[in-house]
Amino acid sequence: MSNGDSGSPIERLLSGKIERLVEQSPIRVRMGDKELGRRDGAGGCGIVVRDRGTLARMALDPEIGFGDGYIEGRIEVEGDLVHFLEEATRLMQSDRARSWYNRLFKQWLRFAQANTRSGSAKNIHHHYDLSNDFYKLWLDRRMVYTCAYFPAPSATLEEAQEAKLELVCRKLQLQPGENVVEAGCGWGSLALHMAKHYGVTVRAFNISREQIEFARTQAKMEGLAGQVEFIEDDYRNIAGRFDAFVSVGMLEHVGHENYRELAGVIRNAIGDAGRGLLHFIGRNRPQPFSAWIRKHIFPGAYAPTLREALEICERNNYAVVDVENLRLHYAKTLEHWLERYERAVDRVTEMFGPEFVRMWRLYLAGSIAGFRVGTLQLFQVVFAGAERREIPWTRAHLYTREGAWADAGEAGLESEWSPARY
Amino acid sequence: MSNGDSGSPIERLLSGKIERLVEQSPIRVRMGDKELGRRDGAGGCGIVVRDRGTLARMALDPEIGFGDGYIEGRIEVEGDLVHFLEEATRLMQSDRARSWYNRLFKQWLRFAQANTRSGSAKNIHHHYDLSNDFYKLWLDRRMVYTCAYFPAPSATLEEAQEAKLELVCRKLQLQPGENVVEAGCGWGSLALHMAKHYGVTVRAFNISREQIEFARTQAKMEGLAGQVEFIEDDYRNIAGRFDAFVSVGMLEHVGHENYRELAGVIRNAIGDAGRGLLHFIGRNRPQPFSAWIRKHIFPGAYAPTLREALEICERNNYAVVDVENLRLHYAKTLEHWLERYERAVDRVTEMFGPEFVRMWRLYLAGSIAGFRVGTLQLFQVVFAGAERREIPWTRAHLYTREGAWADAGEAGLESEWSPARY
Repeated sequence: MSNGDSGSPIERLLSGKIERLVEQSPIRVRMGDKELGRRDGAGGCGIVVRDRGTLARMALDPEIGFGDGYIEGRIEVEGDLVHFLEEATRLMQSDRARSWYNRLFKQWLRFAQANTRSGSAKNIHHHYDLSNDFYKLWLDRRMVYTCAYFPAPSATLEEAQEAKLELVCRKLQLQPGENVVEAGCGWGSLALHMAKHYGVTVRAFNISREQIEFARTQAKMEGLAGQVEFIEDDYRNIAGRFDAFVSVGMLEHVGHENYRELAGVIRNAIGDAGRGLLHFIGRNRPQPFSAWIRKHIFPGAYAPTLREALEICERNNYAVVDVENLRLHYAKTLEHWLERYERAVDRVTEMFGPEFVRMWRLYLAGSIAGFRVGTLQLFQVVFAGAERREIPWTRAHLYTREGAWADAGEAGLESEWSPARY
Repeated sequence: MSNGDSGSPIERLLSGKIERLVEQSPIRVRMGDKELGRRDGAGGCGIVVRDRGTLARMALDPEIGFGDGYIEGRIEVEGDLVHFLEEATRLMQSDRARSWYNRLFKQWLRFAQANTRSGSAKNIHHHYDLSNDFYKLWLDRRMVYTCAYFPAPSATLEEAQEAKLELVCRKLQLQPGENVVEAGCGWGSLALHMAKHYGVTVRAFNISREQIEFARTQAKMEGLAGQVEFIEDDYRNIAGRFDAFVSVGMLEHVGHENYRELAGVIRNAIGDAGRGLLHFIGRNRPQPFSAWIRKHIFPGAYAPTLREALEICERNNYAVVDVENLRLHYAKTLEHWLERYERAVDRVTEMFGPEFVRMWRLYLAGSIAGFRVGTLQLFQVVFAGAERREIPWTRAHLYTREGAWADAGEAGLESEWSPARY
């Protein structure tokens, strides 16, 4: 169609739109013998579109059109999928990728998937209650389904998830006998790690029934059922007083409009003397999740900018103690997951069929692309109430087995510090 | 007056107001044989007010009334000044400390001290051009007039300022041959450190003439004049393209209303491929500096919340890489400064007279109190443009002489990393 001499007026209109979108990028689009975009082949990657209807859907909404075309096998990617998606991610950041249809669809999703209490239950059920057996196929043995922390890039996934749990505990400065509340506990790995290695008691909330049941079984098996209580309930129902609040990978499911309420929940939980940690997927600037991701993978999800998330601290007069960006670690984590997923692909096909396989491949590969390109970020934010006195003197203790703690008490900054127990 | 049976109606009104303010705190207020506030003496601290006029000014505006009364010697503090100011800082956070007069005065200051180009010049001149000889009396030998970094609380001030300069360079990942722009360079210590130890070229901006002249002399003495250019000009006039932007202790003088313009300056300087660091005094929630501080010490100054400062990153689509809170380090730095200041107090009296001595003592001691109590925070924010690929794999390299760097390039996250040069 680039030669402009073939097809109906509608077809020319649609292919012209696709052509304008891809012309500045190294992406090729091929349908039959027709080729759109750059053909210099300089390391470029491309897609093959099976029919005009698929092309039309892409022109109307590049994001959903491509994603759904890929699920249905009407679009094939030539070459490395992640590499192609990195280019596509860059492309989709451009103004010309915006379509009125996509905007309208996103507005509709916002209402259809709102995180009211019943809405959250539905949204969470959609993803996390798929089947524990499915997640076991490609997660680590502790079933940690959030960004890992690789002390070195060559660490295994098992090592990196263990290191992440440890990093969170160190950042929280947990002490034996303290009590911790966790909002959104997944399959319970962090709650169990905190209890086992730091001697704290934990109340862990989650509205995914499959996850809670798994976590309770684990607690019993590890003899930690007396120390860790897994509660099948919404974070909005957290009650009681705690030394620390922690939430890993839940803020994305809260929705920006509910941060005020979340700030109140945290305040009620830890007051002015506690501290907390929020670990979440973030953005550089406010931007909704891809409509395709919300349609198929994470209904109701929203990744805030760091600034948006800090509303929670500012409302509570909490000091931000430390912020770390781990986006490369999430890219690496997802590489491990995708590799394991591909090894288990026959089993996944048996469980959910070929379209599901392609849908989840696109989700995992697209997430790698987003974290590599930087449209997705991963923030760990540590905060402390105004009355909390135990503040680490430096962050060196996170990286060594020895560290020094300061006490900001009135007796002087120096008098109380002593080697930490790491 | 607490016995309610003496003095005129006005006097009773004023003393009643002071009494209501201090009744919940351990602060005692004494004038002659009259005593306000708690008298249980349980570790409390107190002030002695010389006359009714001073008490009236305190009732009208506790902040200015106390501060100006202290300068003039009409108020004496019994016991440790910093300890008293910690209690006073807590007290001033309460709703009852707010006075209509103080609010009005703050509004007036906002206009009178606005950070237009000429306003900034006046504001900066007021503080930083006092006299290099004065600052030499109590700063370290490099004349670093910002929060130091104490690897351990027992480090000397000289060591801690050196460590701060080093920490900033490590966070910026400076490489030989790169060029750096610095906004607000003080007496030039960081610019010279970067050039000498990291082999970069630096353009450093400052509108304090005294500081710039000192810095130029230092550059010549250290043989670095070819590598570091000190420019007597406003940050708004920064031109040219750089690998990195750094600003230590200037954001407080920019004013929140000018962040949009500052974001544009940074964007023009480093584009999408650069990175930068902002080091500034911050707040947990939006709150102007004390009117007394702005009247006497830092005209036009404003310490933003982290959230407010992040507007600069969000506007530029920059990724926040790392945020560290060093408030205890600023308390410690100020303790060193106050101690040196007190040792030089005879010389300061000769230079500026006894009221200046008391004014600066109150400023230094009050700042210690603010950083200890937590009404003041100190943030170091590292950010990177969307195209920047060299991202440290972890933050361990800040704390060890060995570290690993990752390259987020398309070839894979692991392929390019190599030991850093620290």
